[in-house]
Amino acid sequence: MDRSKLDGLMRPKSIAIVGASTDPTKIGYTVVKNIIEGGYEGKIYPINPKATELLGLKVYPTLMDVPDDIDAAVITVPAKLVISVVEDAGKKGVKGLIIITSGFAESGNRKLEQEVVAKAQEYGVRILGPNIVGTLSNAEKLNASFAPTLPLPGKGALISQSGALLISLDMATFTRKVGFEKLISIGNMSDIDFADLVEWLDEDESVSSISLYIEGFKDGRKFMDVAKKAKKPVIALKAGVSAHGAVAAASHTGSLAGAAKVYGAAFQQAGVVQATDLNNLFDLSLTLSLQPPMYGDNLVIITNGGGVGVLATDAAERFGLPLKFVPKDVQEELKKHMPEFGSAKNPVDLTGMAGYDWYYDTVKFVIAHAWTEGLVILYCETAMTDPMEIAKGIIVALDEANVHGKPVTISFVGGEKSEKAMQWLVEQNIPSFSAPDLAVHAISALREYARMKEIVSESDHQTIPVDKEQALRIIKLAREDGRDSLTEVEAKQVFAAYGLPTTTTLLAKSEDEAVKLAKEIGFPIVMKIVSPDILHKSDAGGVKVNIKDVTSCREAFKTIMANAKEYKADANIHGIAIQEMAPWGTEVILGSVNDATFGPTMMFGLGGIFVEILKDVTFRVAPVSKNSALRMIGEIRGAPILAGVRGEEPRDREMLAETISRYAQMIVDLQDDVSESDANPVLVYAEGKGLKVVDARIILKKK
Amino acid sequence: MDRSKLDGLMRPKSIAIVGASTDPTKIGYTVVKNIIEGGYEGKIYPINPKATELLGLKVYPTLMDVPDDIDAAVITVPAKLVISVVEDAGKKGVKGLIIITSGFAESGNRKLEQEVVAKAQEYGVRILGPNIVGTLSNAEKLNASFAPTLPLPGKGALISQSGALLISLDMATFTRKVGFEKLISIGNMSDIDFADLVEWLDEDESVSSISLYIEGFKDGRKFMDVAKKAKKPVIALKAGVSAHGAVAAASHTGSLAGAAKVYGAAFQQAGVVQATDLNNLFDLSLTLSLQPPMYGDNLVIITNGGGVGVLATDAAERFGLPLKFVPKDVQEELKKHMPEFGSAKNPVDLTGMAGYDWYYDTVKFVIAHAWTEGLVILYCETAMTDPMEIAKGIIVALDEANVHGKPVTISFVGGEKSEKAMQWLVEQNIPSFSAPDLAVHAISALREYARMKEIVSESDHQTIPVDKEQALRIIKLAREDGRDSLTEVEAKQVFAAYGLPTTTTLLAKSEDEAVKLAKEIGFPIVMKIVSPDILHKSDAGGVKVNIKDVTSCREAFKTIMANAKEYKADANIHGIAIQEMAPWGTEVILGSVNDATFGPTMMFGLGGIFVEILKDVTFRVAPVSKNSALRMIGEIRGAPILAGVRGEEPRDREMLAETISRYAQMIVDLQDDVSESDANPVLVYAEGKGLKVVDARIILKKK
Repeated sequence: MDRSKLDGLMRPKSIAIVGASTDPTKIGYTVVKNIIEGGYEGKIYPINPKATELLGLKVYPTLMDVPDDIDAAVITVPAKLVISVVEDAGKKGVKGLIIITSGFAESGNRKLEQEVVAKAQEYGVRILGPNIVGTLSNAEKLNASFAPTLPLPGKGALISQSGALLISLDMATFTRKVGFEKLISIGNMSDIDFADLVEWLDEDESVSSISLYIEGFKDGRKFMDVAKKAKKPVIALKAGVSAHGAVAAASHTGSLAGAAKVYGAAFQQAGVVQATDLNNLFDLSLTLSLQPPMYGDNLVIITNGGGVGVLATDAAERFGLPLKFVPKDVQEELKKHMPEFGSAKNPVDLTGMAGYDWYYDTVKFVIAHAWTEGLVILYCETAMTDPMEIAKGIIVALDEANVHGKPVTISFVGGEKSEKAMQWLVEQNIPSFSAPDLAVHAISALREYARMKEIVSESDHQTIPVDKEQALRIIKLAREDGRDSLTEVEAKQVFAAYGLPTTTTLLAKSEDEAVKLAKEIGFPIVMKIVSPDILHKSDAGGVKVNIKDVTSCREAFKTIMANAKEYKADANIHGIAIQEMAPWGTEVILGSVNDATFGPTMMFGLGGIFVEILKDVTFRVAPVSKNSALRMIGEIRGAPILAGVRGEEPRDREMLAETISRYAQMIVDLQDDVSESDANPVLVYAEGKGLKVVDARIILKKK
Repeated sequence: MDRSKLDGLMRPKSIAIVGASTDPTKIGYTVVKNIIEGGYEGKIYPINPKATELLGLKVYPTLMDVPDDIDAAVITVPAKLVISVVEDAGKKGVKGLIIITSGFAESGNRKLEQEVVAKAQEYGVRILGPNIVGTLSNAEKLNASFAPTLPLPGKGALISQSGALLISLDMATFTRKVGFEKLISIGNMSDIDFADLVEWLDEDESVSSISLYIEGFKDGRKFMDVAKKAKKPVIALKAGVSAHGAVAAASHTGSLAGAAKVYGAAFQQAGVVQATDLNNLFDLSLTLSLQPPMYGDNLVIITNGGGVGVLATDAAERFGLPLKFVPKDVQEELKKHMPEFGSAKNPVDLTGMAGYDWYYDTVKFVIAHAWTEGLVILYCETAMTDPMEIAKGIIVALDEANVHGKPVTISFVGGEKSEKAMQWLVEQNIPSFSAPDLAVHAISALREYARMKEIVSESDHQTIPVDKEQALRIIKLAREDGRDSLTEVEAKQVFAAYGLPTTTTLLAKSEDEAVKLAKEIGFPIVMKIVSPDILHKSDAGGVKVNIKDVTSCREAFKTIMANAKEYKADANIHGIAIQEMAPWGTEVILGSVNDATFGPTMMFGLGGIFVEILKDVTFRVAPVSKNSALRMIGEIRGAPILAGVRGEEPRDREMLAETISRYAQMIVDLQDDVSESDANPVLVYAEGKGLKVVDARIILKKK
């Protein structure tokens, strides 16, 4: 990325407002006023051919008339005039445009938006927007927006795809007492998108975390690539994950792959911390902008009240950081700093008598102890102790301990005094919350961030020798046949080209051929109708299993053919698949969707009732390394079944991981053709004994 | 319950403070000061033999010296002096004591506490505490506590088992802007417990909801009985549900029954709404004290911003109230009150242009429409519209519509103006929250409350003809044998006495007897070692299945006996169970624990891997009616398996429900003896074909 253009846009030395207006009811007026009132120290050039002076500034008729260089230009003129402004800006050498104007793609005018972008690209000008509120930065003292004020200062950046939400959150920073360094409205993302901004902000020293309110990415892969590399924490709140109004899917996998699952997988793979709701987005922005990741599970909770201590303990379990008792030597040391009826185990309960000294002593000792990997400090306001004193004890202890790389979060439960103490703690860079579970939720996010980053540092890239050409040939033949799905026989051929172990499946066009192939494969066999017009083979009476001899084979051929014709008289019947009958094994399902945002995406789960009823599946944006595949196998609820339960041998998870990885490679290679696919069931055998894909489905993209 | 005593304690016309002190650092001083400063209008009698005047009040040497009647007395004297004060109070005719003094059961002095209670009972005096902060009521203007101030006024009552938490939440009512009518510290519950207070508050016109912070009940059943009958919503936050520090259990069911599950079941059965955390406790107290239950699933969301609308839609799905599009006729009417680019579907998006009028029009129409069963109104603060105006539009619309029995919750996202508008809305009895998901969570609790109350109104009581005497005889014999568990054969005899269908299981003491019994039962059979010393029969090589003839039966007898002796040379072997081999069916597990708090508690789940790996089980405090049992069957994740999946016939859920209900009756009848039990597996057959208990375990209470 050429940073200089975004530097110009985000940290302009001079800014023009095209559409600056003398009418106080117009956005063109508000923006100029906001820039001035924000305290911007660069040069401001209002542009309006009909005015000469605005709020004490000289107004220029056009960008071309400005005597100096212009880094950034805010555009508020009507949509149809934007393109000529872009032309002017290009000629003038403006680096970036903040196009507030709406009336583009969001209201159906895609073409106009494309023209604007094309024009900007011609001149190498970058565009933020259109259809945005603008951009706000405390570091630059720049409120280049129609949001009423710069936000309360903080260390995080927030990029919002909803302008209305950005404005309301801007105001909310003051009531919530959680500040932001920057608020950026991203609008239609005609040019600059989330990925561009994350990449730029990652190098911007004024912010230490990057929060995103996302309605939908245009290019999910680009975002993932940038987020994976980001050195700063990225926090995402994805809106629109409910099934309300969602459309139906063609494959089993498709029906299981909602936005929540695919975005969730992508965020996890990219090391992005997911916020659960708006309040949590604020809490995590604060926490991840102030505190380091938590590199282990050893959490200590220090409290002055049993009640909040127990609530925090419950929360720790809920948020995946179950508490452990601290080692004996730690307990012994801690007992010196509390009354007899306190508890040194964890939660460390200093009792309601705890004031400055006990908090100071305990915090200083615990944070420095090698066992501790994260610390939550709780205080329940009493009439006898002073919240600010406690807060000071904590900060002095932390300063003196001078330990780095271990996160601390705090909750003070109480009234005005506690609120004030917490505000001061936040100013000392310690995230503080009004309820104990929030402090635990916050530190658990720091733990999750560390866990994800460890995994992200592994590479998902690998080279698997496969026969891509063969796969494409099979697809081409089906396309030539006018179809947009493959038959089971074809799908298995594609799978086989990628080295997936499938049951031998041969196509018999006649009864005699069926017998011949059955003998080749060896009884018992399975016979299935092969017809692009019959997708639900069992329902059509098109499947017979456990056929043990020639007589049954001939009978089955006749019955299946008759059933198929009765089911659909004009069905195009390719013949009957003669299939090796795989021995029983643990059923799993592999599948894929070609997600509109993230492209080829892999699913894995236990098969049969597990997938149908419990929807116990997990997703990864492809490709998927063998290590990632092993993690997929380990993270479903039914994982212990594959690990071996009730005296059963463990299943061949190595081969399963290899197969998932190859499958993922396949859907990447064939992404221009394959829309959805299932390998269901796949039978997995004991360790060292491999697996077999028993049934296969590939749905092609409509062309 | 005799209300007059609690009336005297909670709404005293006169109050004494025994231990009133002239030393401002003593609680005995603070309480008198708090009572005066709270504005209490009754008579105040400080009691202290060493003083004559305190804060302008005449001090009496003892209770006996007070010339008038005394309704309530606060006690702050040291623990060892309390009993003589109780004696005085009894003689004086005091109705209730608020014993703040600590140093009783909570620090091991159980006996002293029992003596105090016994003395109080002698005189019919009720006790709140000991070891409490006191009790606070805005309606009575009575702060009979050492908490610094009466809470911000509200409509709910909060009873807290943690005194420290009560004090901090008292202060937090002002910063959170969520008030309470009463705060009651319940402490050691030596006499008055949660149940007593819920029962009393349910008739107290000054409160409209009852919130509880619970660390643990003494008598769970008593609470459930009272909560079931309560006409006002009861909200519970149960602290201490994590496994941290929990102890191991003897049975399968025991290992699955944590505090979270059993309390959760009890709350559900009693119609108590469970809060997830401290903030949620505040939110739900506010909501349930102000709004009616939601009697159906038709939720409408009205918004001025797509962003908050989408977040609310996601939350609705998360909280079990997935959104539906409103009917066409509603959409058509709504379109008249919004710009063209708005949406009338649901969420109803009025767009950012919406001001007083559109909110007024839409709210008035939607709340009155027959389809609507609940309404969430969202507003995202803009620079163009005024939050207070919007709030007024909403209130006028609701007042004019004058619709009762449909709940409304609100979220305004924004700054100071939005906060003010929301405070005003709360004063108009509309719960309002700073984030859209909180408003949805709140209304979902009103829906859950209505659902639970509908179920609670059914009776769980029934009479099932059973042979309790036979069951007790079998247990008695095992006890006489010096055992605290039954053998499988005995356990099945107990089950059979309660009409549970078990596989025929007969005890063979010799090889010949084994053959004779096998012939009686009919091959194939199962043979299992019967020994109180061998609990894990399979591990000991003590189980042989599918024995088809006499020869195999003789062989199996020898092998099992040899294996058993090898496994444990000195095992007491009763013989070998000869058992009918039940045909395959769907495996389920039934089981029970005798919970320390709630007594006999029933578990149901799918068997095998479902219970072992997925822990897909559900609990009910026994007895369990057949209807409740059907709900248990329907609420596990694997429920569709019993309903019939993949072309399978539905299982015999009627008989299963009947069996669960009988099992529950059994554990109620035998609660003095049975500690834990499992029927695992139980094989359930197709509809009308019943089920069979294949293995049984009963662990007796240690005596």
